[in-house]
Amino acid sequence: MQEMNKRIVLANRPLGLPKLSDFTLVEAPVPQPGEGEFLVRAHYLSLDPYQRGRMNDGPSYAAPVGIGEVMVGGVVGEITLSNHPDYAIGETVVGNLGWQQYAVSDGQGIRKVDPRLAPVSTALGILGMPGMTAYFGLLEIGKLKPDDTLVVTSAAGAVGSAVGQIGKLKGCRIIGVAGSDSKVDYLVSELGFDDAFNYKTVKNYYRKLRTLCPKGIDVYFDNVGGAVTDAVFRLINVGARIVICGQISQYNLTRPEMGPRFLWQLIVKRARIEGFLVGDFAERYEAGLQEMASWLADEKIRYREDIAEGIEQAPEAFIGLLQGRNHGKQLVKIGSRR
Amino acid sequence: MQEMNKRIVLANRPLGLPKLSDFTLVEAPVPQPGEGEFLVRAHYLSLDPYQRGRMNDGPSYAAPVGIGEVMVGGVVGEITLSNHPDYAIGETVVGNLGWQQYAVSDGQGIRKVDPRLAPVSTALGILGMPGMTAYFGLLEIGKLKPDDTLVVTSAAGAVGSAVGQIGKLKGCRIIGVAGSDSKVDYLVSELGFDDAFNYKTVKNYYRKLRTLCPKGIDVYFDNVGGAVTDAVFRLINVGARIVICGQISQYNLTRPEMGPRFLWQLIVKRARIEGFLVGDFAERYEAGLQEMASWLADEKIRYREDIAEGIEQAPEAFIGLLQGRNHGKQLVKIGSRR
Repeated sequence: MQEMNKRIVLANRPLGLPKLSDFTLVEAPVPQPGEGEFLVRAHYLSLDPYQRGRMNDGPSYAAPVGIGEVMVGGVVGEITLSNHPDYAIGETVVGNLGWQQYAVSDGQGIRKVDPRLAPVSTALGILGMPGMTAYFGLLEIGKLKPDDTLVVTSAAGAVGSAVGQIGKLKGCRIIGVAGSDSKVDYLVSELGFDDAFNYKTVKNYYRKLRTLCPKGIDVYFDNVGGAVTDAVFRLINVGARIVICGQISQYNLTRPEMGPRFLWQLIVKRARIEGFLVGDFAERYEAGLQEMASWLADEKIRYREDIAEGIEQAPEAFIGLLQGRNHGKQLVKIGSRR
Repeated sequence: MQEMNKRIVLANRPLGLPKLSDFTLVEAPVPQPGEGEFLVRAHYLSLDPYQRGRMNDGPSYAAPVGIGEVMVGGVVGEITLSNHPDYAIGETVVGNLGWQQYAVSDGQGIRKVDPRLAPVSTALGILGMPGMTAYFGLLEIGKLKPDDTLVVTSAAGAVGSAVGQIGKLKGCRIIGVAGSDSKVDYLVSELGFDDAFNYKTVKNYYRKLRTLCPKGIDVYFDNVGGAVTDAVFRLINVGARIVICGQISQYNLTRPEMGPRFLWQLIVKRARIEGFLVGDFAERYEAGLQEMASWLADEKIRYREDIAEGIEQAPEAFIGLLQGRNHGKQLVKIGSRR
């Protein structure tokens, strides 16, 4: 019997928060690599907020996923067949191979992973796209300096937890914003954040932030947007840098949300807001990964994973991610490593 | 009889648009310069939107004007008495000497003006703070590049008209936004803007801008804020730079205005919003003034002045400025040059 490839395809363009019925599990024969190609068997799939954007039609920085097409997503896996001179059977690779058990690649956008260095799942987290997003976003866009006060939202997430810990390594005061008391506790007692608060139970963000940031806010690393961001703008210092990494509070809105206008604050504070995509730093990835790997080896940086079991669970885990139900980097375990 | 000094002092902190009753004309004896000081007789007073901010209490980049204190404002005038070795009677100087006919200075923040180079009033406009605001804001914050599409608001004002003309010199497509048909006509037929529109009569700013900027918007130089800015955000290109110079639409609001949230656009477009104050470029003023003066001498840059007569007219002219009733740099002629 031919081996089958389970894949999750986009069934409908969601309106608001995606529903399980917006995804379909389909089975197709495992694809065969042609000349110059190789077959990857997935071990872990990465679920990330940016994937919500790809479910929408309309212009963006990347083409949308078509209806009936496999959902986009980073995958780490093992080469099981190869007709490519540079990729051997048994090698571990990471790349955007989609929500599926098997994928054929010609090597474009593929990076090799050394499984002796760290668990291979880290290639999707702290030693992968989220880790590099934190690293380049904080240091290159945020231009973090020692003694800065840094506020980060979605602070217990894959990117936010790395941002806070890098900030701590750089000698800054770090305040995290997260969505549960257990996440807040994790940030302070396990990751060494100076303080943190639960945005779901704190009522007045401005007052809370003013208390936690007595010297004002120098860098704001924003994954969320919305009302916390509004409060931050009232507390920024002269020369503040606001890094827009994500705006997850806005991704599932069916109409644009309104908020107070704050651009005049940028004049008074000579401040800067800047958005970025980690792909813009692709050429410097290797250097960033090396530094992050050395921090990880020295136990200066820690990470946490939230692992769903089986490709079938990907849609539910993804919806949970968009609601903040995960604690740590959201992965889906697809095949077991030998 | 002792000569008197007419001064305009702040009578009340305005709520919303200032009223004439928020100002009082007072007369005091002409002050006498002490040791190391000199007396300046004002020729022109500069009215600028930033002065509205100084009428408010509360923290800002500069201390507010106190009740009963003379209003802040740039003045160009002539030294009539001097006990300062570096400043001679008859020299023309510019500095923040306030809404008054005479002021004593110790030279702090004072710049000498060569009256043979250009009319001395330009030291308050194209060859002064507004000109330098345009120059450094556009080139240093906006990082204008040839072939960029540039949109500028308050385009017929002192800053905006310089921004557009510098942009034209740099080989860009320039779109101006102004508040009357005659200003629009002036921008296109006299200053060489590629196109312009009247925001008071155009209904759909997004559609208008989309038509006028078929290649999208690379640099937005904003003096106004509000609904035009909202529309611009929907049309920015990858790598766009948004320069926040002023937000005059917001200065007279009694409560914060709401607008659509747009920070997610900065991610998709890897764009930057930055506020600045021209004072941050003080050390490079001389170089900027020299280049601007050479453009002026070569008639590559033009300017227009709107001159009220007499210090008594300053409050009304200032209220008009905040309503956009001026056409060109708003000045008040205080004393005649001999």
